[in-house]
Amino acid sequence: MEFHELPRMPRGFTCASTSCGLKKEGDDLALFYSAVSANAAGVFTQNKFPGAPVILGRETIKRGRLSALVVNSKISNVGTGQIGVENARRMARAAARECGVPENEVMVSSTGVIAKQLPIEQIENAIVGLFQAMQPDPLVGARGIMTTDTHPKALSLSVGEAVLTLVAKGSGMIEPNLATMLVYAFTDAQLSTSGLDAMLRRAVDKSFNMLSVDTDTSTSDTCVILANGLAGKVDETQFYAALEMSCIEMAKRLARDGEGATKLILANIMGASTVAEAKIFAKAIINSPLIKTMAYGADPNIGRILMAIGKCTECDSLPEKIEIRINGVLVYANLNKTDFDEMLLRRLLSGEEVAIDVHLHLGAGCATAFGCDLTEGYIKENAAYYSS
Amino acid sequence: MEFHELPRMPRGFTCASTSCGLKKEGDDLALFYSAVSANAAGVFTQNKFPGAPVILGRETIKRGRLSALVVNSKISNVGTGQIGVENARRMARAAARECGVPENEVMVSSTGVIAKQLPIEQIENAIVGLFQAMQPDPLVGARGIMTTDTHPKALSLSVGEAVLTLVAKGSGMIEPNLATMLVYAFTDAQLSTSGLDAMLRRAVDKSFNMLSVDTDTSTSDTCVILANGLAGKVDETQFYAALEMSCIEMAKRLARDGEGATKLILANIMGASTVAEAKIFAKAIINSPLIKTMAYGADPNIGRILMAIGKCTECDSLPEKIEIRINGVLVYANLNKTDFDEMLLRRLLSGEEVAIDVHLHLGAGCATAFGCDLTEGYIKENAAYYSS
Repeated sequence: MEFHELPRMPRGFTCASTSCGLKKEGDDLALFYSAVSANAAGVFTQNKFPGAPVILGRETIKRGRLSALVVNSKISNVGTGQIGVENARRMARAAARECGVPENEVMVSSTGVIAKQLPIEQIENAIVGLFQAMQPDPLVGARGIMTTDTHPKALSLSVGEAVLTLVAKGSGMIEPNLATMLVYAFTDAQLSTSGLDAMLRRAVDKSFNMLSVDTDTSTSDTCVILANGLAGKVDETQFYAALEMSCIEMAKRLARDGEGATKLILANIMGASTVAEAKIFAKAIINSPLIKTMAYGADPNIGRILMAIGKCTECDSLPEKIEIRINGVLVYANLNKTDFDEMLLRRLLSGEEVAIDVHLHLGAGCATAFGCDLTEGYIKENAAYYSS
Repeated sequence: MEFHELPRMPRGFTCASTSCGLKKEGDDLALFYSAVSANAAGVFTQNKFPGAPVILGRETIKRGRLSALVVNSKISNVGTGQIGVENARRMARAAARECGVPENEVMVSSTGVIAKQLPIEQIENAIVGLFQAMQPDPLVGARGIMTTDTHPKALSLSVGEAVLTLVAKGSGMIEPNLATMLVYAFTDAQLSTSGLDAMLRRAVDKSFNMLSVDTDTSTSDTCVILANGLAGKVDETQFYAALEMSCIEMAKRLARDGEGATKLILANIMGASTVAEAKIFAKAIINSPLIKTMAYGADPNIGRILMAIGKCTECDSLPEKIEIRINGVLVYANLNKTDFDEMLLRRLLSGEEVAIDVHLHLGAGCATAFGCDLTEGYIKENAAYYSS
């Protein structure tokens, strides 16, 4: 299976985006639409301060059907109480009216600054007329949901007669917990709501739940899949493989475009006692600011990887059994062998992708986590995010 | 109780430092000595890759007596196998010979790069003759143990007739877990080994264990206290109060001088369901890169504090009960009240100390954690730590 060179929407899906004046420049409002009501499933942030759109979204997704998604960026409508929930409903209502679909088949998302009310009338006014601008190019919608992303993110691939398309935004406040940033998956395959739900949870667990840009779990994380059935039935095993592959690819793209990031860091753990422990090790590596800065500077300070494994005090590890590889090259294998080729290490660390493989030689637990380096760019963006 | 204006060593304690050529400039070797054998207690890192000095130190401290400490910086002697342990023993032996004390009363510490062997003969040679340079000024020893610290750290205060002195280094790879970076406490008070051990663990729990610069738990963390008894008995309640106060003050100084830091951040949690949950919330706040960068930029993005509380999914919190204060001023109190005075907030965040008080109004659990902001300076230091 291969991703399409230019991503496209599956049959029946279209999108549009516009500027409603929340951001100083660029689009800040997007609308996604399915010509026929779609079976749908979704997962949301586990943060205990979920945004108003998440509170409403949990209600909406219960029916298992969606016809439209409406998303604004710049203000996240989080920590905004009853007024916030009412504003989320007003966004759904405005989008429903514009698309001619039931209000309870519209999923709302908002992303941006926390603890600020939405200028709801501005958003309602901007939704009017948006339906006319609908296009089958997912990058159009992807552009409208960006915050600090440096480019819009969409991908698609074919599964038999059907197409699967993902649209996402990421960048900062990203260590999803049982859900993810904003990711929308669209397909014209015919799939049941319960089947979609099971596949989505399994794929998210291996992709977005193993992604971290900065250890901070957003209050707005939402991942939704819509299947409108226009392409008929598909091989479900093949569809799941496509979904998992797409989610992992998108997680990598989100990591690579993390705030200020210049590199993708992959932590591949093998031989841990359990899968759960492998996940903890993998996350410890991609979340360590010292490993992130080592990768950024291509500084051959690989002892920091030992530190990160060792700080997982609740997990099994034996210093004398550990092997570490960087981009496939063995760099640490034996407690007594601590000489390594410094120039080779610098070269291995200097590319745009740093894969850190750790074999614990204890059991069969494996996991991969997706992260990025930590640079002055992250500091710059986040020291003035509110103000910019 | 007040700290001495100029820190001094208690009776019978002296120290010296020198350069043995590990660092390009500045001292990199320190020796601390007690004229009479002292009762002693210590706690060490819980990282599963403890350095060779920690492996040896755990053995040494079992007897409860110490006469000297020898410390090098630049190379941490971690992940170095049997050769590393033998090198730690050789450091202890050289210091014992120089001071004329038993080898098993010498505590060794090493701090710096991981997975590199010590040039042990260089160190042994530098120890010879160091005894002659011994002085009662703790800043002399503090200078010899610095890595990326911007200034040496020592403080002292009087407890009755006795003096309590702390010498420490901190800066990076700092989120101690049941122990701490390098902290040495010296006193001429007469205290039992078991009493010292209990007091040390309790004080460390409220101070260094609540400190985090960058979430990374060092493989070398060591905190040791020596009591040589030369000042006779003291009021133990008063002594404990002095020890706790000193440890908290030193934790603050270590946070304030975290790698690249420009500000001290204090997270004070009140009204949590339990003390354990209060500690988790406090750590979540000081470890959030988004809060750290907000403080750095004095950006009034206080919604990030809600995010950090909410991402502690295992802890009780109710959005509608939470109150947040910055440096004593109420900035968030009600889900529906999300307007705040932006200029006031910017002013509150712009000082050298940002105290974030969060009241959960659920129970009696309180805790305070000590952290710092995240700046370009941290990135710069850690993208080339090995190379510099």
